Amino acid sequence: MENVNKEITKRDVDFATWYTDICTKADLIDYSSIKGSMIIRPYGYAIWENIVAVLDQEFKRTKHVNLQMPLFIPESLLNKEKDHVNGFAPEVAWVTEGGNTKLEERLCVRPTSEVLFCDHFKKIIKSYRDLPLLYNQWCTIVRWEKTTRPFLRSREILWQEGHTMHRSESEARAECLQMLKIYEDFQRNYLALPVIVGKKTEKEKFAGAVDTYTIEAMMYDGVALQNGTSHYFGQGFAKAFDITFLDENNHLQTPYQTSWGVTTRMIGAIIMTHGDDRGLVIPPKIAPYKVALISIKNTEEVLAKLTAIETELNQHNISTILDVSNKSAGYKFAEAEVKGYPIRLELGPRDLENDSITLVRRDTLEKINLKIADILTEIPKYLDLIQEYLYNRAMARRDSMLYTANNYQEFKDIALNKPGFIKINWCGDEACELKIKEDTTLKSRCILEEEMVDNVCCVCGKPAKHKIYFGKQY
Amino acid sequence: MENVNKEITKRDVDFATWYTDICTKADLIDYSSIKGSMIIRPYGYAIWENIVAVLDQEFKRTKHVNLQMPLFIPESLLNKEKDHVNGFAPEVAWVTEGGNTKLEERLCVRPTSEVLFCDHFKKIIKSYRDLPLLYNQWCTIVRWEKTTRPFLRSREILWQEGHTMHRSESEARAECLQMLKIYEDFQRNYLALPVIVGKKTEKEKFAGAVDTYTIEAMMYDGVALQNGTSHYFGQGFAKAFDITFLDENNHLQTPYQTSWGVTTRMIGAIIMTHGDDRGLVIPPKIAPYKVALISIKNTEEVLAKLTAIETELNQHNISTILDVSNKSAGYKFAEAEVKGYPIRLELGPRDLENDSITLVRRDTLEKINLKIADILTEIPKYLDLIQEYLYNRAMARRDSMLYTANNYQEFKDIALNKPGFIKINWCGDEACELKIKEDTTLKSRCILEEEMVDNVCCVCGKPAKHKIYFGKQY
Repeated sequence: MENVNKEITKRDVDFATWYTDICTKADLIDYSSIKGSMIIRPYGYAIWENIVAVLDQEFKRTKHVNLQMPLFIPESLLNKEKDHVNGFAPEVAWVTEGGNTKLEERLCVRPTSEVLFCDHFKKIIKSYRDLPLLYNQWCTIVRWEKTTRPFLRSREILWQEGHTMHRSESEARAECLQMLKIYEDFQRNYLALPVIVGKKTEKEKFAGAVDTYTIEAMMYDGVALQNGTSHYFGQGFAKAFDITFLDENNHLQTPYQTSWGVTTRMIGAIIMTHGDDRGLVIPPKIAPYKVALISIKNTEEVLAKLTAIETELNQHNISTILDVSNKSAGYKFAEAEVKGYPIRLELGPRDLENDSITLVRRDTLEKINLKIADILTEIPKYLDLIQEYLYNRAMARRDSMLYTANNYQEFKDIALNKPGFIKINWCGDEACELKIKEDTTLKSRCILEEEMVDNVCCVCGKPAKHKIYFGKQY
Repeated sequence: MENVNKEITKRDVDFATWYTDICTKADLIDYSSIKGSMIIRPYGYAIWENIVAVLDQEFKRTKHVNLQMPLFIPESLLNKEKDHVNGFAPEVAWVTEGGNTKLEERLCVRPTSEVLFCDHFKKIIKSYRDLPLLYNQWCTIVRWEKTTRPFLRSREILWQEGHTMHRSESEARAECLQMLKIYEDFQRNYLALPVIVGKKTEKEKFAGAVDTYTIEAMMYDGVALQNGTSHYFGQGFAKAFDITFLDENNHLQTPYQTSWGVTTRMIGAIIMTHGDDRGLVIPPKIAPYKVALISIKNTEEVLAKLTAIETELNQHNISTILDVSNKSAGYKFAEAEVKGYPIRLELGPRDLENDSITLVRRDTLEKINLKIADILTEIPKYLDLIQEYLYNRAMARRDSMLYTANNYQEFKDIALNKPGFIKINWCGDEACELKIKEDTTLKSRCILEEEMVDNVCCVCGKPAKHKIYFGKQY
């Protein structure tokens, strides 16, 4: 039987095909008969379930509650906030017929739910006692993308969207940054992604936001993946929807708003950051199965021992997957590599005679000979090591593709020849941002929280206001 | 301040308005600007989260895995199984425009996902080794209902749909009945619903099924709520979609299929079974907050003691909600009753002097004086008592509305004068079922697993094949 991973395109030969190969060969997705709508298969969905479990707990720890808004938005409601509708209307799907009759008003399938939340908030917010409102929704959204890629850009997206209302600007801004920090910590600590965090430019911010903060992850090929955003809305939506509350002194006030979201795109980031030519590599903390148990030969003793090891690991909350099929050992190893299980344990009759077992790290492919009696103490150590190694390897790679350009010629040289992010000083003027895009196709990634000392804009030479990263994006 | 529950319509005066009053006054739902699409507010959604947590664990215990299918179904795909499309096409919502252009083919928003699963199964099932496939999906479906009521009949429904494929009929039938049993046990043990379980008639079965099994719950007003179904499909869909597998002897075979689902409708059943004139009553095992802690007067000592009690209960996994607002004690009691918290604990300065606290059961409204030191041992006992009491009360009420009719005149007398279910002997002929519907509006609920001994059909007098219940339905 042929090894499954032989069919995977080499990562350095064709990164795009390598990516979709991993998506399908690791059983993460299947294409459906609807263009741009993928099937998230059980193994891919199990990663999402793990992501949801951790984030949902974080949201609840910070006093957020979940709810469920409608799937549809009437056209008139979508039109209520001008910037917002301009941003989203071109890419929505419209329901025009229901139950065999033409609808009086078109309904779009939600591309995001700000207007639905505002419509509801207007009804339920009356007094300062009703604030803050800290709401979150896990749901499916639809954006009618022209070109689609699994997880990265699809017509249907699984995500969460937080929507909160506050008495004061400072409280809303603190909320916005708190959620950004939760996303950042989660992506660093669970997904092993060395993300860069900052503020979007006016041009790149969310349609309707005052400020958009972003999590930018750099993929293996140096291209950016925007991997989560947190928006401070100020009072824009609240005013458009006429949402008010009575403060402690019985004065009518307008509340301050945030929204924030992350999507299944994070699974794309895991693939494109940690995967290799043999397949997927999943960080242990988010892996559906942390340990694959593989029989090299199916003797009664080997099967009994593997089952005993599985039971013991499960009892210690270490999830496992057991492969005692009649396929060849080589095939089973390859399958475990394609699937990216952090650790595999190989057991054959000879190992059993020596009370030993072979541990293979998926990150380094290193083989370690263990005493069977030491499994319970060694496995957690290796899981930690792998988690740390993946983060550090991604960080080193990312750092090797971070550049600073001191003048525009230098910027263009790097932009046109080297993948990665380029840091420049920027005057803050959209004209310079547009010029860069036109000359190099690079877009601004995020404005950094760094001090400016007598610097000039890399593009126009006028006094600079910000340090900012530019890069290509998915 | 007026008591919130004074605004609730009396249950025996106008049951329908009482029901929607509970839905809105207990903050379970809000109406949205889209007809028939409700907002499930945080308190209502928390009940659903508890339901999902228990059922998902049961599905995983029985080896099912979750995945996510597309939201849309192309018209041509929906048309693949004749009975199925005839059942669903009249009540779907159609997406006809996406991203500012008219679509070449209409897409319906899934009313259920059989055809999507079959389309996928055809690709991934090759050998007997791939079976059984035990899949489940938690998602939103859309059915374009004309008349809608929160939870009971809405255009958008949150639900789960299990879809499984098997090597043999016996295995598929066992799966179908296994899931029915999981639903039944869950509804009895967690939702305290004394449900009746049986098989649907040919006329009432799911579009495309060989057999449909149903969970029928009887509401306070004697009307049935179909509260979950499990279908055995045989090979109908598999043949329509040309799904085959190679068996152990390398022969091409057609697999056997099931599907099964429950929805947010179960929340409607909780309301209409346990609620009363004061509001909602939630069975403890599914309640988002098992205990409400209420201060009668906000002295420093009272607040400190309530906080300490809350911490202690939470540490023992008893969820609580603390009301130390400045509202009157009466208002707070009423609010706790509307929300249906199983137990409320009332603490004032005088109680504190005596080291005592008042426990009020939501089911019986009985007041019990407890020593504060005994809370941790007493609360779990009362939660169990309440759970049991709710089940027994619902069972006694249900039993009081179960009738047996020995001839058709008797049947019509009961049907036209008394709410509830009527058991009859039935020949199995659809003509008799239709006659009953025409004469009385009652529909068949379910065929029972009971022996027939020389009985004749209640309608036509021919030999009877089944014992069957008839009743009005939501």
